[in-house]
Amino acid sequence: MQNRQDNAGDKTHRQVVIVGAGFGGLQTAKTLANTEVDVTLIDRHNYHLFQPLLYQVATAALTPAEIASPIRHVVRDAKNVTVFMDTVENVDTKTRTIGTKGARRLSYDYLILATGARHSYFGKNEWASDAPGLKTIDDAFELRRRILTAFEKAEMENDPEKRKAWLTFIIVGAGPTGAELAGAIAELARRSLVFDFRHIKPDSARIILADAGSRVLSRFNGKLSTRAHKHLEDLGVEIALNARVDHVDAGGVDIGGRNIAARTVIWAAGVEASPAGKWLAADTDKTGRIIVKDDLSVPGHPHIFAIGDTASFTAKSETQPLPGVAPVAKQMGKHVAQSILADRNGEKRRAFRYHDHGSMATIGRDKAIADINGFRFSGFPGWLLWSFAHIYFLVGFRNRITIGLSWLWSYLTWQRGVRLITGVNEPVQTAQQKSKTSRAA
Amino acid sequence: MQNRQDNAGDKTHRQVVIVGAGFGGLQTAKTLANTEVDVTLIDRHNYHLFQPLLYQVATAALTPAEIASPIRHVVRDAKNVTVFMDTVENVDTKTRTIGTKGARRLSYDYLILATGARHSYFGKNEWASDAPGLKTIDDAFELRRRILTAFEKAEMENDPEKRKAWLTFIIVGAGPTGAELAGAIAELARRSLVFDFRHIKPDSARIILADAGSRVLSRFNGKLSTRAHKHLEDLGVEIALNARVDHVDAGGVDIGGRNIAARTVIWAAGVEASPAGKWLAADTDKTGRIIVKDDLSVPGHPHIFAIGDTASFTAKSETQPLPGVAPVAKQMGKHVAQSILADRNGEKRRAFRYHDHGSMATIGRDKAIADINGFRFSGFPGWLLWSFAHIYFLVGFRNRITIGLSWLWSYLTWQRGVRLITGVNEPVQTAQQKSKTSRAA
Repeated sequence: MQNRQDNAGDKTHRQVVIVGAGFGGLQTAKTLANTEVDVTLIDRHNYHLFQPLLYQVATAALTPAEIASPIRHVVRDAKNVTVFMDTVENVDTKTRTIGTKGARRLSYDYLILATGARHSYFGKNEWASDAPGLKTIDDAFELRRRILTAFEKAEMENDPEKRKAWLTFIIVGAGPTGAELAGAIAELARRSLVFDFRHIKPDSARIILADAGSRVLSRFNGKLSTRAHKHLEDLGVEIALNARVDHVDAGGVDIGGRNIAARTVIWAAGVEASPAGKWLAADTDKTGRIIVKDDLSVPGHPHIFAIGDTASFTAKSETQPLPGVAPVAKQMGKHVAQSILADRNGEKRRAFRYHDHGSMATIGRDKAIADINGFRFSGFPGWLLWSFAHIYFLVGFRNRITIGLSWLWSYLTWQRGVRLITGVNEPVQTAQQKSKTSRAA
Repeated sequence: MQNRQDNAGDKTHRQVVIVGAGFGGLQTAKTLANTEVDVTLIDRHNYHLFQPLLYQVATAALTPAEIASPIRHVVRDAKNVTVFMDTVENVDTKTRTIGTKGARRLSYDYLILATGARHSYFGKNEWASDAPGLKTIDDAFELRRRILTAFEKAEMENDPEKRKAWLTFIIVGAGPTGAELAGAIAELARRSLVFDFRHIKPDSARIILADAGSRVLSRFNGKLSTRAHKHLEDLGVEIALNARVDHVDAGGVDIGGRNIAARTVIWAAGVEASPAGKWLAADTDKTGRIIVKDDLSVPGHPHIFAIGDTASFTAKSETQPLPGVAPVAKQMGKHVAQSILADRNGEKRRAFRYHDHGSMATIGRDKAIADINGFRFSGFPGWLLWSFAHIYFLVGFRNRITIGLSWLWSYLTWQRGVRLITGVNEPVQTAQQKSKTSRAA
């Protein structure tokens, strides 16, 4: 690296540093693969994570390896791309360098901030340890450990009230993650585990999906949202709408005015951007996303771009900024790569335009809703569409095969292949707390 | 449970409690499945682990789910078997009860101690954090994290000496686990990772297999041991024999009189039995195994049996006690189940006799040594034998399929599917330290 810094000067704006190897950052690196620029891709993890399926790891259906690929393997054939596993902590726009936890400074000519988002407790961070969220593989291990352990504790519990609390699962937030988690936990309890216990009836578990809003999956249109609502109820999920969470502790939740005793609470209610905005003291929206210009550059910093969950971009025709979903991040990632190449060719940068090909969410083993350019699907057809789309977009041929087989297996047998409780047996520190101390690269 | 205890009296010696769901304990439970006794199977984990393949999880070839099955799922059809995930802490032979970490007491009429072994540092427990061992899935995660992180750190390191230390791996102990780990790490460095780095040459990594004895895999006969030695050297493993470890710290190892700088040291040198012997104040051998009678019962306790790594059993014709391997544990597990049923039928217990069908060890992707009733195999034939045997003995049809596919995939592509660094990014507490605080159930 030392050398790379010293020479940086003679390389006439060739040093492109990408922070974060999520959907956005990885796409930028892929688009710049084997071009004349030098790319350094930095992430605090050594893997790219296919986050839309993370809930299946948390509910013991998939193993992490099936939805994560080593970053340096994904770009192994891009000889101009160097990958570092490190955590970025600051940016110095004067010297055009970034500082990392590894105590190194890297020079950049172009900087892409693709540092993603973390879950947000709306200022109630003390809830984190009792209501962990789901963003990283370690989060998924923690949720899986809590969900499976709850049934084990219930099996050993003689007090009916305490047993009931172990068998009550509350998911806060009825967006895609919350709805998918609720459906998966319901199936785990009602199908996968149903014959495996002697003292409890796993199918007596209560799964409560709570949201402060008036409907589930509110990003979808009313009709699909209603379908999803019914799918969830068919699976035995209790849905509590217009139910704001007032308090969370180890014993349960105060929600919509009443207290519910529950030993497992999962937070899927909100996200906030990583601190990239603070590094630049840039203008951010209320969730901390950097308000970017129409070429996705940060105002005042034409060589710094923010993309994906780090960027707040509102199209001219729209009132709302684009949502923090994979397709947006990927298209942004490609766009900034093209802008960098345009600069070098003396061409004009184009303004970013998002091509919305629709969105989908799945509920349980064989139902999903999808809205593809106005064509709406639900139930089994929606699920087929969802399955093929997700397998198609997975990184890595091997992962496509193994996930296909895992799903086929679960579909035919109702079984889940990954019912392992690993990690600490007592919750000492939650993944959420960890993620605060070692924040997104 | 309360009820079960109270009624225990009227059940005329029907309460069988098995502590530990390894090869031995699980076999006892399976043999007693759907008989007239009530079986309680207790383990601190919720899964049965196929330990012989654990080194492949530590070296990123397999996922834990492929070598572990939920205990309660394995025995789901045995309605007389209850599974508890709990940690046993003491035995009261007067009241015939055991005490668990879950602060419950369970009554037993028959008690089977199948609590396994932990790695032993020969009194140098301070080495544990710098030279972790491999016994549990959490150990495997820790080793995988350290091995993969070492290459990441080396890629970012400019100092040649420090980089060299990151690329030096020392495995202490050349038994099956040590030899298999060394071969797997060598292949990881020389094959799987070789094209994925820009600043380092992963194939320049040094993998040193050290042992205080005079040959590798000394449990095998001289000829096979020599073959294994050659296989390992062909993979680029340096073998240091008659090399005793005098000191271990974060910087490296003092071994055979010289200091070797290494940031990754793995302990495969010795094991000690779990504390079951202490619970009973029973006579134990020097590794803490309970010296059992010829029916595997604990002297003075005809209703308490010790099996597997917890038992020290020396056949009349032999001078050495049986080794701590899966076939011994399984045969012992079956034998004690038969003894219990014999008691109830008023029949005489038989003395235990071990039927040795041979042993095998693998080195790398396509070489192994096997000694099957005097028929000796090595190289590729040995490996084929090893592969089929291990797939055959795996618990669970699904695992057999997925492992078969994973191996086929790695065999064809040299790739490893599970190159994920998870868990803490700085070694705060090693799996070994954890396993001390929550010791074998």
